[in-house]
Amino acid sequence: MTSSSITHEHTPTAEAAPSAVEQSVREAARAAKDAQPHLARLHRDSKDRVLLAMAEALVERTEEIVAANARDLEAADAAGIAPGLRDRLVLDPQRIIAIAAQLRDAASLPDPVGEVIRGSVLRNGLELRELRVPMGVIGMVYEARPNVTVDAAGLALKSGNAVVLRGGSAALHSNTALIAVLRSVLTAHDLPADLIVGIDEHGRAGVDALMRARGLVDVLIPRGGEGLIRRVVENSLVPVIETGTGNTHILVDASADLDQAVEIVTNAATQRMGVCNALETLLVHREIAAQALPRLAAPLTSAGVTLHADEPAAEILRATDAVVVPATEQDWHTEYLSPDLAVRVVEDLDAALEHIRAYSTGHTESILTRDLESQQRFLAEVDSAVVMANASTRFSDGGEFGFGAEIGISTQKLHARGPMGLVEMTTGKWIVVGQGHVRP
Amino acid sequence: MTSSSITHEHTPTAEAAPSAVEQSVREAARAAKDAQPHLARLHRDSKDRVLLAMAEALVERTEEIVAANARDLEAADAAGIAPGLRDRLVLDPQRIIAIAAQLRDAASLPDPVGEVIRGSVLRNGLELRELRVPMGVIGMVYEARPNVTVDAAGLALKSGNAVVLRGGSAALHSNTALIAVLRSVLTAHDLPADLIVGIDEHGRAGVDALMRARGLVDVLIPRGGEGLIRRVVENSLVPVIETGTGNTHILVDASADLDQAVEIVTNAATQRMGVCNALETLLVHREIAAQALPRLAAPLTSAGVTLHADEPAAEILRATDAVVVPATEQDWHTEYLSPDLAVRVVEDLDAALEHIRAYSTGHTESILTRDLESQQRFLAEVDSAVVMANASTRFSDGGEFGFGAEIGISTQKLHARGPMGLVEMTTGKWIVVGQGHVRP
Repeated sequence: MTSSSITHEHTPTAEAAPSAVEQSVREAARAAKDAQPHLARLHRDSKDRVLLAMAEALVERTEEIVAANARDLEAADAAGIAPGLRDRLVLDPQRIIAIAAQLRDAASLPDPVGEVIRGSVLRNGLELRELRVPMGVIGMVYEARPNVTVDAAGLALKSGNAVVLRGGSAALHSNTALIAVLRSVLTAHDLPADLIVGIDEHGRAGVDALMRARGLVDVLIPRGGEGLIRRVVENSLVPVIETGTGNTHILVDASADLDQAVEIVTNAATQRMGVCNALETLLVHREIAAQALPRLAAPLTSAGVTLHADEPAAEILRATDAVVVPATEQDWHTEYLSPDLAVRVVEDLDAALEHIRAYSTGHTESILTRDLESQQRFLAEVDSAVVMANASTRFSDGGEFGFGAEIGISTQKLHARGPMGLVEMTTGKWIVVGQGHVRP
Repeated sequence: MTSSSITHEHTPTAEAAPSAVEQSVREAARAAKDAQPHLARLHRDSKDRVLLAMAEALVERTEEIVAANARDLEAADAAGIAPGLRDRLVLDPQRIIAIAAQLRDAASLPDPVGEVIRGSVLRNGLELRELRVPMGVIGMVYEARPNVTVDAAGLALKSGNAVVLRGGSAALHSNTALIAVLRSVLTAHDLPADLIVGIDEHGRAGVDALMRARGLVDVLIPRGGEGLIRRVVENSLVPVIETGTGNTHILVDASADLDQAVEIVTNAATQRMGVCNALETLLVHREIAAQALPRLAAPLTSAGVTLHADEPAAEILRATDAVVVPATEQDWHTEYLSPDLAVRVVEDLDAALEHIRAYSTGHTESILTRDLESQQRFLAEVDSAVVMANASTRFSDGGEFGFGAEIGISTQKLHARGPMGLVEMTTGKWIVVGQGHVRP
């Protein structure tokens, strides 16, 4: 059996010979695929031992990781990187300790693999069980955040999956150093190093090749900005889980408790900016707007938030200290990830639901109300991954949900919806045991 | 609020103005999307009443359906359609009774919508529930089989989904007549007719437009031949569930009970040909080959099956009546859907596992053995949707699994794997209820 030509997979179109990058990425993915069965049936104890050893090795080898990171920072500074992006790129001894702690957290989580999801004995005596098994090979495409490299590798390992990592060329040296440490620990535990493979050196062409590796990679998870996610969703032949873009809404209903509303809106909009579950658009019921808007605006203004308000809201806010600019159609669409908030006065609950239906990315929305019917309608009719009442959108998070870890927040309906933990990195497999059964 | 420009969806690229077909299909999908909320929260009783009324209406209006079908058959005969395809296209009073019975079956199934999948009260008092909700709009692309039109519409309705149907232009008149009957029943029950939309009149361009309707259609399910499925998988921007191609294997292990093996292999290969769970490749352990192959071949030969055998198998079969042709590399890849079977002698269990890893489409494989270790290894190591021991591959079926209905068999790992029933046509939605909760 010649193993080069026989795998059931989609090959690149015949028009052009596969490029060197294409070949190299496919080889990496194939190596990961071949390695994965060695991990698939490992008991949780063995996997946890490896994760703890990885945490230890990262801390031990801090010096070489920081040195590699310095090379990335130097290049980034020379290219004039934005301060926010630079901050996400930095690795120092404290951050490496935090990254190692993520691996220890992964070790402490329950292992989803092997769970019997469903099962029964059929009338004819066939024994039927659906087992939870690893996906196989998970491709992760993300931006220059070296902590994601370790986090993704750890969660993949814990859930029995091999992983192909593409983490942004700005973090090339950092990721290479981190992956080298993780791979050396795999080898030391008699596991194939190719359970964790990096393809950063191939740049964007590497992502393209990964998106074509159907049959070698079982699922692609893009984590990052809208442009990256859209590119992967639109071009991948490998099934994709769409994550993250959070154009989230809070509706302050006519009956809202205003003290609570001020606290929740402030928390959702300012507790942490630049994350997907931060508030982007505030909708205020017309009946309460004149009373509520000045109180809602005060702490936002103190926090330096610019309000992009529609005309009725702007009229009310003019009497306050708030920094107000007129909202445009584009504002209703925008996930700012910055100290900006869109504000709109809505006629009633129906108008709020219509606005959300039109502009939401299906991530998280919340209603603040004391009216049971409004709450019930909002929870039932808003078609988002997470729908809340009287709570901050910031709770839309795998950690807060008690998953212990989060690989991203899915905004699609297929496979996973909302915060994704270890369970979402697995699939099912049906086992059917008979005693000579034939179908009549 | 102008509703034409505000939906969060991918629009066709700006290069060219959308074609008339594109516009028409998007309007159909949008109408289905707008109709779906009317169905989403309907109680099971109401949905079942509609399904039963649809069954009745189809039988009542048999005459007009058969007349429409006659037009399709006339065109098909003029075009010289293959007998197998023609048979799938025919509608007569008896078949319409059978199709109506499928709707009554759907009515009798439990309703998955509204089930609490997971839930808990978090330490901070937040109440968390994951509810089972409809997907939204399901696109079905299939070949000229009018019964699928009704079956898909019925299962979509029962699971709270709107459906956009594209059933192959050879069945255009039949499908149009069937859909008209179903829609009139929706209207009579005060439900929007656009819960069920057909786009057959647009031909292939309609499928292309449907594949681009991301944001309007939540999932596309292609059912049909490999070419159709591959085209959808490779081109769709809408998430796809890959169904069906079944290059299935049975391994007759050294320790197999030969009487059982003859029964099971005959059943798997000949009980019904041309279906995805029929046997395509028979692997026989070297130690038992000389004894087993002649016995296995006899009933296959009586059933008119041609054996595509590798050289060691052919040598043994030469002494029998079997019709044997030499197997080529292509045979190991082929889902025949015809009276053909590939046969290969394997050195041992490892060689069988390697063959399956290389050629299987991940649908269904079965081992026939009396050896516990062989059975355990096979069940654990074969990475297919359904893995069996001592049973016919023909049991890989939603009906046989007790799902009551089947929308297809998924061969991918995302969302659904193996036979898909009503549960697989739903997704989750997280409901979070607080009392003024903010994140610390």
